[in-house]
Amino acid sequence: MNKTETLELLQQIKDGSVSPEEALNRLTLAPFTQVGDYATLDMHRELRQGQKEVIYGEGKTKEQILGIVKAMRKEGWQNILITRLSPQKADYLKQYTALFYDDLSRIGIAAKTELPQVGNITIVTAGTSDLPAAKEAYYTACALGNRTTLISDVGVAGIHRLLNHLPKLQKANVIIAAAGMEGALASAVGGLVDCPVIALPTSVGYGASFQGLAALLAMLNSCASGVSVVNIDNGFGAGYLAGMINQAIEKGHPAD
Amino acid sequence: MNKTETLELLQQIKDGSVSPEEALNRLTLAPFTQVGDYATLDMHRELRQGQKEVIYGEGKTKEQILGIVKAMRKEGWQNILITRLSPQKADYLKQYTALFYDDLSRIGIAAKTELPQVGNITIVTAGTSDLPAAKEAYYTACALGNRTTLISDVGVAGIHRLLNHLPKLQKANVIIAAAGMEGALASAVGGLVDCPVIALPTSVGYGASFQGLAALLAMLNSCASGVSVVNIDNGFGAGYLAGMINQAIEKGHPAD
Amino acid sequence: MNKTETLELLQQIKDGSVSPEEALNRLTLAPFTQVGDYATLDMHRELRQGQKEVIYGEGKTKEQILGIVKAMRKEGWQNILITRLSPQKADYLKQYTALFYDDLSRIGIAAKTELPQVGNITIVTAGTSDLPAAKEAYYTACALGNRTTLISDVGVAGIHRLLNHLPKLQKANVIIAAAGMEGALASAVGGLVDCPVIALPTSVGYGASFQGLAALLAMLNSCASGVSVVNIDNGFGAGYLAGMINQAIEKGHPAD
Amino acid sequence: MNKTETLELLQQIKDGSVSPEEALNRLTLAPFTQVGDYATLDMHRELRQGQKEVIYGEGKTKEQILGIVKAMRKEGWQNILITRLSPQKADYLKQYTALFYDDLSRIGIAAKTELPQVGNITIVTAGTSDLPAAKEAYYTACALGNRTTLISDVGVAGIHRLLNHLPKLQKANVIIAAAGMEGALASAVGGLVDCPVIALPTSVGYGASFQGLAALLAMLNSCASGVSVVNIDNGFGAGYLAGMINQAIEKGHPAD
Amino acid sequence: MNKTETLELLQQIKDGSVSPEEALNRLTLAPFTQVGDYATLDMHRELRQGQKEVIYGEGKTKEQILGIVKAMRKEGWQNILITRLSPQKADYLKQYTALFYDDLSRIGIAAKTELPQVGNITIVTAGTSDLPAAKEAYYTACALGNRTTLISDVGVAGIHRLLNHLPKLQKANVIIAAAGMEGALASAVGGLVDCPVIALPTSVGYGASFQGLAALLAMLNSCASGVSVVNIDNGFGAGYLAGMINQAIEKGHPAD
Amino acid sequence: MNKTETLELLQQIKDGSVSPEEALNRLTLAPFTQVGDYATLDMHRELRQGQKEVIYGEGKTKEQILGIVKAMRKEGWQNILITRLSPQKADYLKQYTALFYDDLSRIGIAAKTELPQVGNITIVTAGTSDLPAAKEAYYTACALGNRTTLISDVGVAGIHRLLNHLPKLQKANVIIAAAGMEGALASAVGGLVDCPVIALPTSVGYGASFQGLAALLAMLNSCASGVSVVNIDNGFGAGYLAGMINQAIEKGHPAD
Amino acid sequence: MNKTETLELLQQIKDGSVSPEEALNRLTLAPFTQVGDYATLDMHRELRQGQKEVIYGEGKTKEQILGIVKAMRKEGWQNILITRLSPQKADYLKQYTALFYDDLSRIGIAAKTELPQVGNITIVTAGTSDLPAAKEAYYTACALGNRTTLISDVGVAGIHRLLNHLPKLQKANVIIAAAGMEGALASAVGGLVDCPVIALPTSVGYGASFQGLAALLAMLNSCASGVSVVNIDNGFGAGYLAGMINQAIEKGHPAD
Amino acid sequence: MNKTETLELLQQIKDGSVSPEEALNRLTLAPFTQVGDYATLDMHRELRQGQKEVIYGEGKTKEQILGIVKAMRKEGWQNILITRLSPQKADYLKQYTALFYDDLSRIGIAAKTELPQVGNITIVTAGTSDLPAAKEAYYTACALGNRTTLISDVGVAGIHRLLNHLPKLQKANVIIAAAGMEGALASAVGGLVDCPVIALPTSVGYGASFQGLAALLAMLNSCASGVSVVNIDNGFGAGYLAGMINQAIEKGHPAD
Repeated sequence: MNKTETLELLQQIKDGSVSPEEALNRLTLAPFTQVGDYATLDMHRELRQGQKEVIYGEGKTKEQILGIVKAMRKEGWQNILITRLSPQKADYLKQYTALFYDDLSRIGIAAKTELPQVGNITIVTAGTSDLPAAKEAYYTACALGNRTTLISDVGVAGIHRLLNHLPKLQKANVIIAAAGMEGALASAVGGLVDCPVIALPTSVGYGASFQGLAALLAMLNSCASGVSVVNIDNGFGAGYLAGMINQAIEKGHPAD
Repeated sequence: MNKTETLELLQQIKDGSVSPEEALNRLTLAPFTQVGDYATLDMHRELRQGQKEVIYGEGKTKEQILGIVKAMRKEGWQNILITRLSPQKADYLKQYTALFYDDLSRIGIAAKTELPQVGNITIVTAGTSDLPAAKEAYYTACALGNRTTLISDVGVAGIHRLLNHLPKLQKANVIIAAAGMEGALASAVGGLVDCPVIALPTSVGYGASFQGLAALLAMLNSCASGVSVVNIDNGFGAGYLAGMINQAIEKGHPAD
Repeated sequence: MNKTETLELLQQIKDGSVSPEEALNRLTLAPFTQVGDYATLDMHRELRQGQKEVIYGEGKTKEQILGIVKAMRKEGWQNILITRLSPQKADYLKQYTALFYDDLSRIGIAAKTELPQVGNITIVTAGTSDLPAAKEAYYTACALGNRTTLISDVGVAGIHRLLNHLPKLQKANVIIAAAGMEGALASAVGGLVDCPVIALPTSVGYGASFQGLAALLAMLNSCASGVSVVNIDNGFGAGYLAGMINQAIEKGHPAD
Repeated sequence: MNKTETLELLQQIKDGSVSPEEALNRLTLAPFTQVGDYATLDMHRELRQGQKEVIYGEGKTKEQILGIVKAMRKEGWQNILITRLSPQKADYLKQYTALFYDDLSRIGIAAKTELPQVGNITIVTAGTSDLPAAKEAYYTACALGNRTTLISDVGVAGIHRLLNHLPKLQKANVIIAAAGMEGALASAVGGLVDCPVIALPTSVGYGASFQGLAALLAMLNSCASGVSVVNIDNGFGAGYLAGMINQAIEKGHPAD
Repeated sequence: MNKTETLELLQQIKDGSVSPEEALNRLTLAPFTQVGDYATLDMHRELRQGQKEVIYGEGKTKEQILGIVKAMRKEGWQNILITRLSPQKADYLKQYTALFYDDLSRIGIAAKTELPQVGNITIVTAGTSDLPAAKEAYYTACALGNRTTLISDVGVAGIHRLLNHLPKLQKANVIIAAAGMEGALASAVGGLVDCPVIALPTSVGYGASFQGLAALLAMLNSCASGVSVVNIDNGFGAGYLAGMINQAIEKGHPAD
Repeated sequence: MNKTETLELLQQIKDGSVSPEEALNRLTLAPFTQVGDYATLDMHRELRQGQKEVIYGEGKTKEQILGIVKAMRKEGWQNILITRLSPQKADYLKQYTALFYDDLSRIGIAAKTELPQVGNITIVTAGTSDLPAAKEAYYTACALGNRTTLISDVGVAGIHRLLNHLPKLQKANVIIAAAGMEGALASAVGGLVDCPVIALPTSVGYGASFQGLAALLAMLNSCASGVSVVNIDNGFGAGYLAGMINQAIEKGHPAD
Repeated sequence: MNKTETLELLQQIKDGSVSPEEALNRLTLAPFTQVGDYATLDMHRELRQGQKEVIYGEGKTKEQILGIVKAMRKEGWQNILITRLSPQKADYLKQYTALFYDDLSRIGIAAKTELPQVGNITIVTAGTSDLPAAKEAYYTACALGNRTTLISDVGVAGIHRLLNHLPKLQKANVIIAAAGMEGALASAVGGLVDCPVIALPTSVGYGASFQGLAALLAMLNSCASGVSVVNIDNGFGAGYLAGMINQAIEKGHPAD
Repeated sequence: MNKTETLELLQQIKDGSVSPEEALNRLTLAPFTQVGDYATLDMHRELRQGQKEVIYGEGKTKEQILGIVKAMRKEGWQNILITRLSPQKADYLKQYTALFYDDLSRIGIAAKTELPQVGNITIVTAGTSDLPAAKEAYYTACALGNRTTLISDVGVAGIHRLLNHLPKLQKANVIIAAAGMEGALASAVGGLVDCPVIALPTSVGYGASFQGLAALLAMLNSCASGVSVVNIDNGFGAGYLAGMINQAIEKGHPAD
């Protein structure tokens, strides 16, 4: 609830059109919904943040996930993202609700609808093995209404493969660079373009990759400007942030 | 050199207006300048990336830095950023070139000129001790032509201080959240706004903060969407990226 | 055995009512009981510490656990907590003894009885996935006779969900804040209340959460005062300590 | 501002005794004071948390610290704690304000006054070298009105030294156990008493102590119940929390 | 494409024997082949690097691997290495292509042919348990046409076993030293020979070996000269590099 | 082969009783036996080190282990220790050779014979869960001819349980202290006795125990004198070293 | 106080020759002496442990150290070891007490007297730079009455230097192997001798040695039997333990 | 001493031309020289390894270094490398011996002579700040008789700078790639050439570079083939190994 809305509400109390008790309720109770004893849905996130809440599937029972999806659908939500959703839980959900499911990235989308897709997000991966995280980013960005392209297997060990895609890269509003192992792709891309690069470290590798730590550290230390980093394998986070930037650019300068 | 430019160049060879030898030179040699035996300036970065190269002052001698600055000025560059510049080196540079210097953030700007400032970047810090990194971000963003506001000491231990600035936060194109210790500010801000949040972990803290590692990890694990992270104390990187996003939004959708 | 008791025992030797040999036994041998060749029960812990010993179920065979439970019951103990108890071992125990078992938190309580519940402990979790650790804390606190409330899914990504519970939080004697990922909940709660906050980091998360390390470090670096931390996923420890503080407050100032 | 207070304020709007604009101000602006452009004092913390804000001296200039102290004194605050205060900064402050300063723990107290000291906090250290952190805890607890005892050099390598103090330990409301190296003191104390033990790891040690990490990990893994941990060398945090618990016990059960 | 080739191509444009559009294609598109939407084969690597691309089997589906193998065979490639290939995937591949498979090292070689074997690579292992990584190196080196010898179980705990092989070691062009645990074999070998030693840390060990980290660190800190290190368990990398050095020595000084 | 033996051999060459070629063989080839292509048995270790080689069972196939055992038995060896032996491999071995097997510690002893047991080794564990590592130490020490006692579950959380065993501890030649979690037992024991204490960290614990790292670090930082440390869960190493010290003490001062 | 002594004391109470109050004092108060408010000397350690307490000089003021030395001397102690003693503090102490000081190892010995030296301890170092830690071990062992030899710079990069000293090594009762960098010396020595080897990792090295961590891990993972490890640079601990073992062997089998 | 030499020596004993005692001396005593009580020079390293021993300057006193240099010169050695030599120690040495000294890389060369330079080593650095490590490699390679080129500041943030040097890179026998921060240069170079690449991580960077750890991990995980890694900032090691490979290639196939 922003300043203007708050002032308006207070004015309504003064006018008598809203009672103080009701106002208190609106100030504190409205923006979320209790689901069972395990979840507190943030129903105002769409207004406050422009996007809907996502369900992190790991560590929740299939019944809890279904409960949350039902509560969201009741509010009329669509394109409900469920990340880290195991095939078993996906099968369970499909019995009760329409569900798109990609088993490489283990992402599910309930109540999927086609949104008009705007702008230009490009996702590049260093190798084929980075696809699970990259596809999580891809489906997230698509579901949130962003035009998105995925280019795979163009890592720095054969830098000319990347250079070949340079024209495409230079037209993007924002780029996601997904890489495990030494994570050098983010720096290489960052040095070639003038748009924001979201570095998505993946857990691909072995030994001293320490489940993605090597790629993460490399990306944090990128000598290229315009690069920022999300958590290891956090394809959702990369796709969400890319969408946020892409749509802001498409909308252009907000009126002050 | 993008696809269109390359095609044009090749066409000129066919036309005979450019010789093959000259074309080869243009393809490979043009975009940088050698400075002494220690630096290779990337002179096309402005074209390719829209911003100029920055000088990382640490680990370079004062003579090397001066040499690089001179080479840049000869090319007509302005607002040349020099990060991690010690006061001693700054004093030396001032003898040979006009230099703005802020000793809290240890950033220097040679050939500083006022650019028109557009858009809206907001920088918030958790505490007073986070100001060195935050000011590096601030001066970087300003020097690159972004309207920038700095709000300090609004960490989560007194969350109402942050909430008070909510209207200001919600009007920003992009926010930088600088925090050391537990780094919770980025999540708190990320949960309140619908614009990209660049988390800037700082090395403020002691003991198990491990020079900013605790804040870095916390920020990478942020449960708020729309948050990405730069290196510990990398104010320059945060400011540069924020500027890149801010200006893309101000310019709006690029023509395809 | 405290100073007064020791002095009394020594007096009895002098009186001749206790032989020196018997006194030596009491001084050193009494306070524990050998179970098989694998456990040494600390039978005086209730006197010395005010609470009974807990059985850490991991790394013990089901036969060993049963043996320890039986020895305790023989001494008349009730509300015997068994943590990290697998469902398989729980099923085995149920054949031989009355056992309460919660399979989310994997805690078992043998010889459960209802104690009068006093005071006010509030447990908050950042997300639904933090419930296993939080419920271990919950059942521990309840079993030890504390009035306990559990509020789930009020993490900082939607800080207004937490603020809504502020009145309830401000009435607690002690609060447990359970969170994985960036662990910011402990700082947010710590900044809002004036009672001790026990931060319970959980292993919820992935990638750079490093199985709870990120949350642990964040909580140790909390800029809020009044916060201390227990081991990752140590719901028992948090619940036990909360109970200790809660009951001390309920009892009030001990006579010197 | 709690629920009751908010309702009251809303009622006053309805009554017309407060204007909506004024109410908005009260809801958001009141609780802090801006100091220069570098600090945002949380003036309501005393009401909300029962204790005053502390100044973390590291990373602040001496002028910033003085500015904050002056702003606090203007509000009538006393016993203003300044931690990690270098001797140089302390000397500077002494020119402008009355300041108690302990150079072992580097803690300063401005506007020191004697409060009535209640309850019983006992601080034990493993070795003489742990005194800096332990004294930070000691002065913090004293300044906040707690009766506090400090026993030094009773580590587990000579466990009988600790056992000798058992009667004293068993009378405490809360104990702080400060230890570096292997940090075993916290477990040893925790096994002997039935009050909360705050484990304070110190950076004493060398090699594989990794500046206190060994002690920190040991304390987090304590097999004794009732132990929680604060950051390495965080004497202030330990002393503050101990005071909070001690005073709650002294006050006893709050009226619901 | 090197400078000479580029110049030649440009000359052909001028001659009119190649059109600008075609030239652009050759400059950027030629050197790789797209396989499905998941892989980008670097077909020029043999020319550019003298060896063929290897397939990293982990994180790829069996269908993807088969697709890549087929694309490579279509280009006429032989001795296609597939590392980290599970027995299940190997069985699948065998239905469609001739495949050599070693289940200890989990390496597969499709379209295996016998190359003439030149030079002298010696692989030594500290223990029997290091054989999986060592055999990956062995088969890699053999498949690339290097004469290779494998000596196992000659670790430093019985240094005379190693000394016995000294004559053989001193005749090698390059040596691979594979060891887990404390990884001391690399230093011991490095002190005995005057050829390059490639240290191959393995994940053999437990506890503080941290899955090969102890061996890795030891090898990086080798006080013997002429030692360099590859990733933990990276037998392929060690074998490939050894082959590269071995063959360069066999070929001798390249004409300038 | 020591100096005296070498000189003697050289004398025999001079005498002509041994040919130079034969001498070379004896100098380099004698002390080991090749088993298949996977193991190099150190047959002189008994002479050189006073004990026989042990077989590390992990990472070896059951056929390899059997091959090594057979080669050893052919040489007349007895009490052949096989550590980290899975039940499956043990079952396989039992078909071909007499084998003692303890499934808690997963240690096997082939060709077990009763040796006279001398001296006095005492093993103490902090908890029941430390028994696997402790029993590996126990069976190792016994098999090598040492009189050994095992006392379990006497950790520092109930220090009086340990104190009760003080007389027994003070009579030992050497003590092994096995503990996970915070590993404080080693320091507590070390402070009570004047014999060497071998600290055996175990992987018992969770969260910030990091699979035994916390205990390991604590033990390395022990403030008690006379304590040294072996690898996490390395019961064999602790038992072997304890036996070495115990037997040296029993034998007393060796004649110079 | 052992069982026999306790029983005797209790008997005296019964006899009336000692009052209960006095007995309580003896049971708990006797074994240590308070020095100022900063140290608690363990005066019975000599009886209980056979050696005297050592003073850890780091983190203590020069006045505190002097105070402790004086208290010890008053009790008649000799050969008082002070480790990590800075030259400045040493100079201060020399004004008040006779002090031997070695500035390479920074060890001081107050009230030094020559004890008869027995047995045979051999210390070997990998390089010249390991001498500080090795000399701390050397002076500690000598001061406690052990015949000790120091051999420096015989690391594994030139293994024949070590082999040359084999006869000397094989006559030792116990060996200390001091090494930084890759720490391989401990394994090499451990494979050559049949006496206990105390591995002393040093902080010699740079980069991935991580101040001795690489050597520490390597030593913990030694594949040689009979090796245990002390803390990084803990020359005192190694020397003390070596002395304990050496003297036990010299004394031989204690009467049961 | 290799097999042939040993056999020859044994033959001489048989012939009587060498006595057994003398032979023993030659077998064990010859290959090193004692310097003071602190160093054991490996005088046969040149024969055994083809290069001379280097002096690691850190942790040695200036007198010790001088002593070692003098002993080496007495044996006729030239081009004696001294790494990590502080300017102060260099000044001291210059008073007693001719010394080349480079203060950027802190390397010294005593008794420097010009060797004929053969082959082709190319060193590339990512930035100007990597020059200290790169120059240590450069001077080492030069001093050992290798033709060496140094190209600086061609990191991946401007990949075209590197591509411009491609012809030079592709003619090298071996390449050293020095980089800090994200260390991506090694992978980029490795993907472009078919000669061995020695990755030299440097400690350039801040925050999450952890003094070169990020670059080290990235390089170990390089997805390019033919890359191996040396310790952080180990310019000497990289230069030495490069020289070893370069000279082996120049010499070509050794006669069997």
